[in-house]
Amino acid sequence: MILSTFKKPYYAVIFSSSRSVAHEEDYEKMAERMLELSRQQNGFLGVESLRNSDGVGITISYWDSEESIQKWKSHSEHLIAQELGRSQWYDSFTIRICKIERDYDYQKGAHV
Amino acid sequence: MILSTFKKPYYAVIFSSSRSVAHEEDYEKMAERMLELSRQQNGFLGVESLRNSDGVGITISYWDSEESIQKWKSHSEHLIAQELGRSQWYDSFTIRICKIERDYDYQKGAHV
Repeated sequence: MILSTFKKPYYAVIFSSSRSVAHEEDYEKMAERMLELSRQQNGFLGVESLRNSDGVGITISYWDSEESIQKWKSHSEHLIAQELGRSQWYDSFTIRICKIERDYDYQKGAHV
Repeated sequence: MILSTFKKPYYAVIFSSSRSVAHEEDYEKMAERMLELSRQQNGFLGVESLRNSDGVGITISYWDSEESIQKWKSHSEHLIAQELGRSQWYDSFTIRICKIERDYDYQKGAHV
């Protein structure tokens, strides 16, 4: 789940959301499909995602360029999911598109 | 928990980590203290944080500048927590310092 650093330049899309309780099964199915679909997109590097029992979630996807992010945002199937997200699944969300300036990682036993 | 957008320019520190099972109580105490302390720093805007039952966590703190991030990184009490993080609490982590390029948010009922 924890992703290491990537070759710069790269970008993150931070998606913080609060879920409604309704339509749980439909949501899970769509979330899984969007994950599968995003992995097939050009420029996709990886994703980190957590959601707690209160329905609060953070999903961070990593991309090689803003152009790749823009293309994924405009993907026809993703557009439908975005519309359902607004109308049915989310009480609120914030999306931030970020450029990674610096990164470093730590693995127990791998560093002095 | 879900933070709205902030006035640009601003920055995010994405801290993705995998916890060891050991020292749970000490960890909770220190995590709480670091949260309290970070809120007192110049340039701190807010924090979003989740951890699941497997010990995988994502904490994103938001800051007004890279300088504020650097100062917080070098804070004496925070340095001790960082050292304990490496020696005791984390199996692995990745830190990414990012500049927010674009952001937008959604609140059910607030938008047309």
